[in-house]
Amino acid sequence: MSVAPAGLLTVEAARDAVLAVAEPVGTETVAAGDALGRITATTVTALVSLPPWPNSAMDGYAIVAADTTGAAEAVPVTLRVTGDQAAGAAPTVPVTRGTAIRIATGARLPAGADAVVPVEATTPLDEAGRLGSRGRDATGPCPNAILVHEAVTAGGSVRAAGSDLEAGAVLLEPGRALTAAAVTLITGAGVENVRVHRLPRVAVLATGDEIRAPGEPLGPAGIPNANGPGLRALVTAAGGHAIDLGIATDDLAEVRGHLRDGLTQEADALIVSGGVSVGPYDVVKTAIESIGRIDLWRVAVQPGKPFAFGVAERPGGGPPVLLFGLPGNPVSSAVTFELFVRPAIRAMAGRLDVLRPVDRAVLGEAISKSHGRRAFLRVEAERDDTGAPVRDGHGRVRVRLAGGQGSHVISALAAADGLAVIPEANDELPTGAEVALWWLDRA
Amino acid sequence: MSVAPAGLLTVEAARDAVLAVAEPVGTETVAAGDALGRITATTVTALVSLPPWPNSAMDGYAIVAADTTGAAEAVPVTLRVTGDQAAGAAPTVPVTRGTAIRIATGARLPAGADAVVPVEATTPLDEAGRLGSRGRDATGPCPNAILVHEAVTAGGSVRAAGSDLEAGAVLLEPGRALTAAAVTLITGAGVENVRVHRLPRVAVLATGDEIRAPGEPLGPAGIPNANGPGLRALVTAAGGHAIDLGIATDDLAEVRGHLRDGLTQEADALIVSGGVSVGPYDVVKTAIESIGRIDLWRVAVQPGKPFAFGVAERPGGGPPVLLFGLPGNPVSSAVTFELFVRPAIRAMAGRLDVLRPVDRAVLGEAISKSHGRRAFLRVEAERDDTGAPVRDGHGRVRVRLAGGQGSHVISALAAADGLAVIPEANDELPTGAEVALWWLDRA
Repeated sequence: MSVAPAGLLTVEAARDAVLAVAEPVGTETVAAGDALGRITATTVTALVSLPPWPNSAMDGYAIVAADTTGAAEAVPVTLRVTGDQAAGAAPTVPVTRGTAIRIATGARLPAGADAVVPVEATTPLDEAGRLGSRGRDATGPCPNAILVHEAVTAGGSVRAAGSDLEAGAVLLEPGRALTAAAVTLITGAGVENVRVHRLPRVAVLATGDEIRAPGEPLGPAGIPNANGPGLRALVTAAGGHAIDLGIATDDLAEVRGHLRDGLTQEADALIVSGGVSVGPYDVVKTAIESIGRIDLWRVAVQPGKPFAFGVAERPGGGPPVLLFGLPGNPVSSAVTFELFVRPAIRAMAGRLDVLRPVDRAVLGEAISKSHGRRAFLRVEAERDDTGAPVRDGHGRVRVRLAGGQGSHVISALAAADGLAVIPEANDELPTGAEVALWWLDRA
Repeated sequence: MSVAPAGLLTVEAARDAVLAVAEPVGTETVAAGDALGRITATTVTALVSLPPWPNSAMDGYAIVAADTTGAAEAVPVTLRVTGDQAAGAAPTVPVTRGTAIRIATGARLPAGADAVVPVEATTPLDEAGRLGSRGRDATGPCPNAILVHEAVTAGGSVRAAGSDLEAGAVLLEPGRALTAAAVTLITGAGVENVRVHRLPRVAVLATGDEIRAPGEPLGPAGIPNANGPGLRALVTAAGGHAIDLGIATDDLAEVRGHLRDGLTQEADALIVSGGVSVGPYDVVKTAIESIGRIDLWRVAVQPGKPFAFGVAERPGGGPPVLLFGLPGNPVSSAVTFELFVRPAIRAMAGRLDVLRPVDRAVLGEAISKSHGRRAFLRVEAERDDTGAPVRDGHGRVRVRLAGGQGSHVISALAAADGLAVIPEANDELPTGAEVALWWLDRA
């Protein structure tokens, strides 16, 4: 599957060469509560046990379990209520045999108690020994005593200290993405700040005499700038911080000036779209060579050529600044980004999962492609009424082409859910053929 | 599946009641290039056709196709080169019979031409009629004439105006999330600004005498604030703008003050965690009733009670401010958020897909749960070495419990990939049973 015609690189060979020089760009400390989506740079451990002390799982009464031996609905035992334990307060009165302390859910278990009887299993007694109503509610004045209508075992309705996790336990390994639940976990375990990878700064420059900024009249031969905003959005979706270097015409000094601007803005990577083919107006390669070195790569992929990659020295030292020359064509540009730039950004961001998970799909229509190149077709998945992909009896997603597969057809790119990967060796595939599927990011 | 015991609401009934009052909160205009992740509020149409004018798909020569009739490798036809057409420039010289204009990829096709012959199929001739090398490269001085070695059909290597899409075509329907490819599409079609839904402002207040702010000593009975940061992260992941209202003790005036602060900050929804059960220290309900109305709901769900929901009038008018009272327990709080708050935030954000897609999973171990309640178990999916979920022969994801299912076990919540949905009627399910699976957001 990964054999390319002589003189062409396979996708893997090209990607490996990029990833060989894509290093994490640095780390920073952020408040744990603001760390959603960030990638851990170090192991995060619990500072306190969860729960920190034994507490009540119910509204009820903290008791000595042995006092309830033999208790039953019709044969309750009576316990004297000696106090009221709220959450957040330090217990002051211990529980002794024959006594109970009313306790709220989450409140710390008083010394001496080894169980909680839920309020539902008790009936309150007032000072005069009058029965209240079999209690659902734990509100109101504290009763003088209670009847307990069931036998409780030691540990019942008690969450032991450290029963979720112990102080010092590993919460997150390095390289883990902080989900909302991970934020809950680390803040709950007393972690105030977390060391995370810095977001890679990725500067985007669109080039071409025909490219017009938003609002600029197109004139007889201009086209709106799609690659600049499109690539910045892809950078953001990949987990980078996008920097807008604007538009440069096919003028050597102008392209060079914009690239130097990118270095001044401390970019970790520069992406230039357009101007890397072999046409007479392609000055990008020459401009890039004024700040680093770059090679035009011939990769056996469709769509995707031309693609240029190189590195520049980082002003002030450190890992090299990565230089990407992408096709001017928005579809080729997006696919080349997906293949080579996204993995590099994720590696620079400290992620361990730099590549897409590979799903299995089945083609809903016959396709054909260039021989000897791996094709990444823009496809749409069939979905059920919940929005979940429909899978066939083998668990494979049913996909169809999202539109025309010409490399200028942006509408099909926008309609696509994913990329179907067609191996180099297949010139065509029939309806029903199985292919690998990469899901694209949904916003 | 959705039948709840008498006196309890089903998850659907509770969610439908919430969604009945969750309206989009408003719209705003943003630059198309900054719209990644936003939700369209109106139909977005193409302002220009793509491509705007016929252009060349190759580096080559713009010609009249009929001139090449009969041309072949050994029988080339000769065409006089009368100009050089760069991208971004308006063509000035038309192509006439017997002539050709050198053209770059993406450049506008000159008048008179109806095809492009790729440079690879030509040999340049200089002024003296000397043959140059059969051309790959389209660089260097423009030749005087060319030999064309193949017959070209009309339209060959030309991208017709509007062949991707026509001006006025619908690019995005209302309620569509703007992916990176959608940003490429609309900017490419000349759209400068786009009307999107405003992000709902969702204020989060953690309550409880036991809750301590980051850095504050826990003392004998304090616990770190996990719900505040955890819920704010959930709000952000759901597509809302999170507002931090801090921590309130179980004091009526204090809770009320924080809630009023939320209204002052123009919150579209307020989430209060803790203090909505029936314990003696629960002042949240009373506090909420000072700004709106709220009901304690009994939902047949595990984990998840207590849950309170209501509305307040919006100061200044407009759709009501939604009021959510969630359990103080972080796991119950997160699951209740998932069931009721996330759909509301997505509805307020103008999304059409407010609920999770429902996948199919198979249990890797036997489970048991409370009778008559729908359970949402925190589960981990088995994954292959690409990170894709492993599916069985029926396409079902293999899942296992992510850890203890007690409602205080945050570690299992953080380890979970998804929620396995166990119907009310099942008290237990054996290994191999099929269940519905909701994937949770991965960061």
